[in-house]
Amino acid sequence: MRIHIIGTGLLGASLGLALSAQNHQVSLEDTSPTAQQLAADLGAGQVLNTTSAADARGAGSTDGDPQIVVVATPPDVAAQTIAAALSHYPNATVTDVASVKTRLLETVRELVAPAELDRYIGCHPMAGREKSGAIAARSDLFTARPWVICSDEDTPSERLGEVVAMAEATGASVIHLDPRIHDAAVAKVSHVPQVIASLVASQLRHAPLDEIELAGQGLRDVTRIAASDPRLWTQILAGNSEEVRSVLLDLRTELDEVITALELGPGSTGALAKAIALGNEGHDRIPGKHGQAPTKYAVVTILVPDTPGTLATLFKDIGDLDINVEDFRMDHAPGQKLGIVDVSVVPATQQELETGLLSKGWQIPESAIEKEGIA
Amino acid sequence: MRIHIIGTGLLGASLGLALSAQNHQVSLEDTSPTAQQLAADLGAGQVLNTTSAADARGAGSTDGDPQIVVVATPPDVAAQTIAAALSHYPNATVTDVASVKTRLLETVRELVAPAELDRYIGCHPMAGREKSGAIAARSDLFTARPWVICSDEDTPSERLGEVVAMAEATGASVIHLDPRIHDAAVAKVSHVPQVIASLVASQLRHAPLDEIELAGQGLRDVTRIAASDPRLWTQILAGNSEEVRSVLLDLRTELDEVITALELGPGSTGALAKAIALGNEGHDRIPGKHGQAPTKYAVVTILVPDTPGTLATLFKDIGDLDINVEDFRMDHAPGQKLGIVDVSVVPATQQELETGLLSKGWQIPESAIEKEGIA
Repeated sequence: MRIHIIGTGLLGASLGLALSAQNHQVSLEDTSPTAQQLAADLGAGQVLNTTSAADARGAGSTDGDPQIVVVATPPDVAAQTIAAALSHYPNATVTDVASVKTRLLETVRELVAPAELDRYIGCHPMAGREKSGAIAARSDLFTARPWVICSDEDTPSERLGEVVAMAEATGASVIHLDPRIHDAAVAKVSHVPQVIASLVASQLRHAPLDEIELAGQGLRDVTRIAASDPRLWTQILAGNSEEVRSVLLDLRTELDEVITALELGPGSTGALAKAIALGNEGHDRIPGKHGQAPTKYAVVTILVPDTPGTLATLFKDIGDLDINVEDFRMDHAPGQKLGIVDVSVVPATQQELETGLLSKGWQIPESAIEKEGIA
Repeated sequence: MRIHIIGTGLLGASLGLALSAQNHQVSLEDTSPTAQQLAADLGAGQVLNTTSAADARGAGSTDGDPQIVVVATPPDVAAQTIAAALSHYPNATVTDVASVKTRLLETVRELVAPAELDRYIGCHPMAGREKSGAIAARSDLFTARPWVICSDEDTPSERLGEVVAMAEATGASVIHLDPRIHDAAVAKVSHVPQVIASLVASQLRHAPLDEIELAGQGLRDVTRIAASDPRLWTQILAGNSEEVRSVLLDLRTELDEVITALELGPGSTGALAKAIALGNEGHDRIPGKHGQAPTKYAVVTILVPDTPGTLATLFKDIGDLDINVEDFRMDHAPGQKLGIVDVSVVPATQQELETGLLSKGWQIPESAIEKEGIA
């Protein structure tokens, strides 16, 4: 495929890297010649020619025209850039990577003729890093990540197929969603977590450094995305303001209950326990890293001696039981006599696995029999 | 040193593992015989005898008495257990690992004679996991983590020295803090992040699973600690209610500004940018991972086909190379044909492992060759 990417920041450059690695023909364009050249130097694709990309567009023969144009600009210029791309590349399918879909689609609809609109298919690859720019780009940024495609009944199936093929070429998993459902979902799973992480980090602004030195992995995890770009996030939050506000209002109600409980002191600890327990409940719904529902697998924990070859023996024994391992994880500290291996299997096979491994002499502490995500 | 640990949950068992690894003589005690035995089986120390630990205490000669008794029980029984330990071990230094220090010290002061109080030195090792119990224990849990010691001018320097030596034996970095300063600090860096992570996760309770499937690493990071134990956290939050409430009130003020800006729409995006920028500012104050264990392991990422028996073959191939696997991890997306296995090895063996696996036909994406923790 010939793919033209407009905007060579983190997402555009990562997409270029991923598609170039699959031997697709990628051309790059950015309003910043420096950013454009950096992405090209990193291997994300070719800059169209040595003058400007605009000239190149005018001069290009239709044969060399891209089949897909991907708009990967900042969100506030995405609609205009999509409209311009539809006009400049009259045969191409135009897509984008913006984080908010409903308002963008509405704006594009105002800018282009209805017939042109059929060539636009909104996308949102759910991938990113707290770093920005081509320099942070990675060819595997989209690997195993959801890639949301917002098509509708008017979308020609050929064009949809092209966009699906491109998304899958990056290693992403395609998900088809209505723009409104997408926007409600990302408010919960992405935009509100960003706001809240920023607010938690903000409380550290005036804390003495020797107090902040007590920070542990918990704080680091909660605030990692607080390093994100304010310009980008202002655009995202403003673009999805209603959905984000609605979730934040719910969250504030629960926050107020915690604050009240803390003020009332002994006797109102039930409200504190409830807040943490509701958090457990929500947390349990987050799919494991393999993308499956967290309740899908049972986890069997096995204590393994720290000797070479042990893992091979363990997996051979599991294989002999004809049980497929869905996921596994090992914790293993230096100086410790035993490693701890978590093996995830479909629940129906849990008992068989435990019985089988116990009979082969493996140690399975009783307390470790628990569902993934509850541990 | 002879050290007696009361309470063999995550912290007590991890402490036992760490001290045993340094050849200190560790005895264990827990109200649950099962928990006590599990910790002993994991190598955290010796159970005093086959009857009850209380009997053993009565029967022990003074020679065998511990120099240090560490109370690692749940916070709500810590004060009583500390008082009992001061009484049962009249020569020992008694310390604890509870997360809140001011109120605990006040309660202990009410329970014991002033002369006895000099043998108690409150501690808070700033380490933990979202999993609990001895099964989650790790000998390196405290490595490079702050270990707060709350002594005062009345603390005998010999006893303080013992506690410092024990803390440093675990690999922790000792920090001396006033209990009140400690409690204000942990409100910001630990307790408020816990409350907020739980509140963010709570918003997912009623979200359709296909929306939550869009969850990315950002949400996973923000909500990881939302899996924490409600009973434990209720005790911690109630014990530090004033400090936690004060920070939450500040946070709510900033949250209200964001909610208002989202309601007002265009023209008030400045408030959104400010919230994210203040988050940047706070985030920048968090110390880097310096002080954490230095890059110990190299990570080799292998793409593996999702077919039965593959893992056994992989680990057999690794075993044949005579390379010890320090840690491993698998990621696995729905509908994807490949799993992603991260294998951690000592850096000196990384190249040998990669060359060996490539020669056996395993797929190692170039982009995956990176140091753990830098990725």
